[in-house]
Amino acid sequence: MARRIVIIGSGAAGLTAASAARKKDKNAEITVITEDEHIAYSPCAIPWVLEGVSEWKDIIMHDPGFYKKERNITVIVGTKAESVDGTAKKVVAGGKEYIYDSLVIATGGTVFVPPVPGKDLKNVFVVRTIRDGMAIEKAMKDSKSAVICGAGVIGLEVAVAMRNMGLKVTVIEMMGQVIPRIADPDMAELIQKHLENRGIKFVLNAPVQSVKGTEKVEGVTAAGEDYGCDIVIFATGVRANLDLPKMLGLDIGLLGAVAVSPSMQPYVRGRLQKDVFLAGDLIQCQSAPGNGPTMSQLGSSAVRQGAVAGTNAAGGNETLGPVCSPWISRLGGLEMGGTGLSRSLAEWYGIRSVEGKARGSTRARYHPGGKELIVKISADASSHRIIGAQVLSGEGVNGRVNWITDMIARGETVESLLSYAENAYCPPTSMVKDVVLSAAEDLRDKLTKVI
Amino acid sequence: MARRIVIIGSGAAGLTAASAARKKDKNAEITVITEDEHIAYSPCAIPWVLEGVSEWKDIIMHDPGFYKKERNITVIVGTKAESVDGTAKKVVAGGKEYIYDSLVIATGGTVFVPPVPGKDLKNVFVVRTIRDGMAIEKAMKDSKSAVICGAGVIGLEVAVAMRNMGLKVTVIEMMGQVIPRIADPDMAELIQKHLENRGIKFVLNAPVQSVKGTEKVEGVTAAGEDYGCDIVIFATGVRANLDLPKMLGLDIGLLGAVAVSPSMQPYVRGRLQKDVFLAGDLIQCQSAPGNGPTMSQLGSSAVRQGAVAGTNAAGGNETLGPVCSPWISRLGGLEMGGTGLSRSLAEWYGIRSVEGKARGSTRARYHPGGKELIVKISADASSHRIIGAQVLSGEGVNGRVNWITDMIARGETVESLLSYAENAYCPPTSMVKDVVLSAAEDLRDKLTKVI
Repeated sequence: MARRIVIIGSGAAGLTAASAARKKDKNAEITVITEDEHIAYSPCAIPWVLEGVSEWKDIIMHDPGFYKKERNITVIVGTKAESVDGTAKKVVAGGKEYIYDSLVIATGGTVFVPPVPGKDLKNVFVVRTIRDGMAIEKAMKDSKSAVICGAGVIGLEVAVAMRNMGLKVTVIEMMGQVIPRIADPDMAELIQKHLENRGIKFVLNAPVQSVKGTEKVEGVTAAGEDYGCDIVIFATGVRANLDLPKMLGLDIGLLGAVAVSPSMQPYVRGRLQKDVFLAGDLIQCQSAPGNGPTMSQLGSSAVRQGAVAGTNAAGGNETLGPVCSPWISRLGGLEMGGTGLSRSLAEWYGIRSVEGKARGSTRARYHPGGKELIVKISADASSHRIIGAQVLSGEGVNGRVNWITDMIARGETVESLLSYAENAYCPPTSMVKDVVLSAAEDLRDKLTKVI
Repeated sequence: MARRIVIIGSGAAGLTAASAARKKDKNAEITVITEDEHIAYSPCAIPWVLEGVSEWKDIIMHDPGFYKKERNITVIVGTKAESVDGTAKKVVAGGKEYIYDSLVIATGGTVFVPPVPGKDLKNVFVVRTIRDGMAIEKAMKDSKSAVICGAGVIGLEVAVAMRNMGLKVTVIEMMGQVIPRIADPDMAELIQKHLENRGIKFVLNAPVQSVKGTEKVEGVTAAGEDYGCDIVIFATGVRANLDLPKMLGLDIGLLGAVAVSPSMQPYVRGRLQKDVFLAGDLIQCQSAPGNGPTMSQLGSSAVRQGAVAGTNAAGGNETLGPVCSPWISRLGGLEMGGTGLSRSLAEWYGIRSVEGKARGSTRARYHPGGKELIVKISADASSHRIIGAQVLSGEGVNGRVNWITDMIARGETVESLLSYAENAYCPPTSMVKDVVLSAAEDLRDKLTKVI
């Protein structure tokens, strides 16, 4: 009999799992169950649609018909998986029962909205689904100003999009810097100033106390001050959706997400579960530089995890190594990215970090069109292993972040980097010594001064 | 007494060695002796000056006065080091004697011009020094057509520059493809077609037989055909300058260059020489993927080698790991780069290579402005270690080449890459799964079919 694979969730993790399962097992009966109405779209692209750079139809890649026809995968949309029974190996969704041999749970996360008064008023939004995006787009047409709660990457991307569309934009952040947690204050300050120059206002160290208005939102109160606006966006982080994992009794990890093995399988009281796989925003996995748990709530991570979960659900045997969770954004013409541990994440893992930094250009200094490039690399003061990096420039950030990610994943020391790392060079594409290497040299010098 | 360090040669290797030596030893007496009149310039930038993108003054970074004032380094220009005596530890240059405690030889290489009739006619050039570049620039003013002998990266860069300046350009290559040796035929064909569309004519499989003309060049004969022109450029590879190494009796390696240790020290009959260091186009070092000798005749390699040679000449103890020699060029709006072994280099090392390939975009498919991106990765069929890659696109090639270089240097297998490698993602800067990972997946699939 054909293997029955049920996948719950149609985000990047769920659909990648479905396609990977099909690649592994030509005969499996594969069913994807999802609450969403749209599938196979890019939620990361929503800010660029709001800005008019892309259109909704562009960022929706496929519909259920495509999956049926091209991959013989059944996708059931608009249907919530209400319950799962690990003993009967059965999912109930929309009143129907689905028996599985292998189950993939990829139900992602939900934006955490702080429980403040007024949070349910009209024109208060989160940025998660196409439906969210379309509602924001509609509200923007009649609005002059917006408050974004949360200065993380998504908050900043939406802030830039709305500012580019002519709105007055205020970003309110509880912590003392933008891109908290994953960016260091010195790098965060650079991007904040850049966005301030583009007319975005920032209020830091300001927890949101209430959303004001009668029917429709009229303002936000934070740290005792009122900020009037027509739209409020909560971009305040994503919490794992744990309803189904809890029904199965899966072990929840230190970070409030499902703990999984490198094969993407969960545990029940420490015992590996053979027929359940998870991928996406609801799991925690192993941090490469941190030697402890971490969450990679990124589209690119969801795809990698989904591929492993789907392949293994179809009888394969793949594993995912520990992660660095590289991230990047493009904000008002500047690219900012990072990988591994920031200063504050290193502190969370109890690692003493030492930082090196260099400034240069993305091209030979004399070659026209080069952009200023700032690279920061940090290492564990005791082992000299590279543990993190942040890169800021008008271009060329993505490749450098991926490059350093590989060094971190391999446990490379700064000294080893300087002995081994080489960069390709021609005047229009890099400096003769890439700024990554200059930052590493600075880091080596700093390490010799650590006692 | 202060350590006396004599450095012969003022290219990237020599001047980097001088600066590194000064950083290591504040008191050393450092002297650079060079035949060249200009120092501290970027020879790689010459094509872009010929095209009018940069100016000569831009690409000359410093003069001897700068080195004296800022780093207390004496640079003696226009002076040939005529002899060196390893027993007396003495260099003779311009009739003067220079006693050294440590000697750095960074005299680079010379463009190999095949010994064909007419090679010394007026308007026959090589592209090596600023003086060469200025002579070419002057000749271009009165010329309508050029023949470039050699379709390597430098030949193509000069061809593009001359074509952009309105000349009729023919590139004649002895081998059956452009960028022979380091690019595979399938990738070379793509760049050749791109340049043909820009009006450059290619003649392959055609060894140059003679340069024709009476006083001034009038044409080139290759493979029995005549190609009329006003300028001839020989871009036919660089041979190591071995005069001084031979005076010291240094061991010459398999590739016709000075064999050096990871500390950049040469050997005499297999015995390491303590007070001599070499860097740049005249040495051979260890190939990371090839497990044998290789030459890295690249500006970026010269800088790395120079830093190690200079530091060690000043009493330091640094080493250079085995190399992948990543390279890149930007040719008529397309970037092409590579690292490690091409198919033909793998064959030279006796390695059976398997190739994976993927096409995608430099941004999310729907995001405007993305460029087509082609990535090819190859592995050793027996160990599955990644041994090489080539990348072609309108942008973003440099970072990907550096990224894969690190994987090769670390001896990473394809399977390990797929378990560990992560890419940062946002729609304007990459696909959710980078094309590098897709190429690696294709390679893994190909490897499973190898018997």
